[in-house]
Amino acid sequence: MESSVRIEQALSAAIDLAKQPGCPPRLYEAMRHAVFPAGARLRPRLCLAVALSCGETDLRIPMTAAVAIELLHCASLVHDDLPCFDDADTRRGRPSVHRAFGEALAVLTGDALIVQAFQVLARMPPTARLGSVLASVSAGVGTPWGIVAGQAWECEPTVDVAQYHRLKTGALFAAATMAGAAAAGVDPGPWRALGDGIGEAFQVADDIRDATSTAEEMGKPAGRDLALDRPSVVRELGLEGAIGRLDRLIGEVGETIPTCPGAAELHNLIRVEARRLLPAKLAQRAA
Amino acid sequence: MESSVRIEQALSAAIDLAKQPGCPPRLYEAMRHAVFPAGARLRPRLCLAVALSCGETDLRIPMTAAVAIELLHCASLVHDDLPCFDDADTRRGRPSVHRAFGEALAVLTGDALIVQAFQVLARMPPTARLGSVLASVSAGVGTPWGIVAGQAWECEPTVDVAQYHRLKTGALFAAATMAGAAAAGVDPGPWRALGDGIGEAFQVADDIRDATSTAEEMGKPAGRDLALDRPSVVRELGLEGAIGRLDRLIGEVGETIPTCPGAAELHNLIRVEARRLLPAKLAQRAA
Repeated sequence: MESSVRIEQALSAAIDLAKQPGCPPRLYEAMRHAVFPAGARLRPRLCLAVALSCGETDLRIPMTAAVAIELLHCASLVHDDLPCFDDADTRRGRPSVHRAFGEALAVLTGDALIVQAFQVLARMPPTARLGSVLASVSAGVGTPWGIVAGQAWECEPTVDVAQYHRLKTGALFAAATMAGAAAAGVDPGPWRALGDGIGEAFQVADDIRDATSTAEEMGKPAGRDLALDRPSVVRELGLEGAIGRLDRLIGEVGETIPTCPGAAELHNLIRVEARRLLPAKLAQRAA
Repeated sequence: MESSVRIEQALSAAIDLAKQPGCPPRLYEAMRHAVFPAGARLRPRLCLAVALSCGETDLRIPMTAAVAIELLHCASLVHDDLPCFDDADTRRGRPSVHRAFGEALAVLTGDALIVQAFQVLARMPPTARLGSVLASVSAGVGTPWGIVAGQAWECEPTVDVAQYHRLKTGALFAAATMAGAAAAGVDPGPWRALGDGIGEAFQVADDIRDATSTAEEMGKPAGRDLALDRPSVVRELGLEGAIGRLDRLIGEVGETIPTCPGAAELHNLIRVEARRLLPAKLAQRAA
């Protein structure tokens, strides 16, 4: 709970770096609109949890990594909602950024949030870990295998669906685990598999929510997978099958956690979080 | 001349990081389209020139900064050309990215190039200079006073024109001089004024070109300032007045060059480059 408060405070401080004389005030407002009120903040919490599991007790460096990753996630939502992609009117129960501020400012808000993530990293306390954190964070977003590349698969004539999901969703979870390790001074490479596995589980949970929730519950349009003829685990396996796969994936990710002081607590935390991803009426069954 | 070849090679290598199995091939093509063939490459050349002037002879670190800055410049052109901004059909004599690849992929290409800039910095040889270079580069692009903030002034109900140009154009020149200094292990702060001054001179030269060149000479639509009722030094002072101001600005920037081993050569280089910015028929008069 305490870390959630600290994440919100750190995100707010990061956005407020833009609140200066000479900065366009609507750009600042749109950036704040894109980042608040809080979503689940899964990725920054995962990043911090990994750093703690690796034995890091000073969270100043992990927190800069966590904030950078959440800003990049929010940026991706702003651009994904644009008319040329999902054309979504709502996000987190409010108008999407382009609906509230116009398309031009929405493009720039996404750009500004991407850059802000790296400005935050640049303000990290001086440490030799910066290079490793920067590499982990940026690789999860860019090319060849980050979330931007994942989204760009939508612009190709033929798509490898598994690769599409792995990049579009999994890459930023992998960035969260890897950057958490890097921020703790640990080699990030062995932490990639955990992030990939969590990303896959998240994608299944997201498909289940899309198929079973109302737009009000989700804070964004529901039933989009069916409406847009997108691949979905629920369409492929049915609801019970999808819940079964989620359970199996969450069990499996435990095996991918590298040896570290807090491995058992980390796996338990991931189980709890996975249950919270499901609509309340299904969470009991998944448990 | 040699540094120009090395800049192209380094940019090509940076883009080719995206050419991997699993990366959407059209995204890679669009990134390459956005960065090649070469524009004037003013900013990376300025960045390298500053690092050399500061006495740095090993250009590996300055080159990563120079490449990052040019990728960010190219990203800004891709997004500025979008229908919701300038709606430009051509750039560097070829179709703009959204004309060639569609609007969705153009948004993602800009995003990918922004992130690629930071991925390039992450691959810098290990050095304590990374934090300072990262701060200089990212501040020139983001908020409160980078080029994204400059562009966002177009979305405000009232605009401070001088501030608009200072951010939209000057900020990345300031990033180039500051990152060049930082990459040479020198405090970047004192190098900001030189970048700001060069940015202001560039803006005047750009206004002169827009007013006096054909679209073919510019490789992009000409006469846009008049057509879009934009502020322009040529409209304000007339052509002779604008050329006079450019001469004065180029003279003045010499006084802003911090004390360093190569100050005189750097000022001379800036004079030569400034003349090259003008259409051939005017360059003689400016000289």
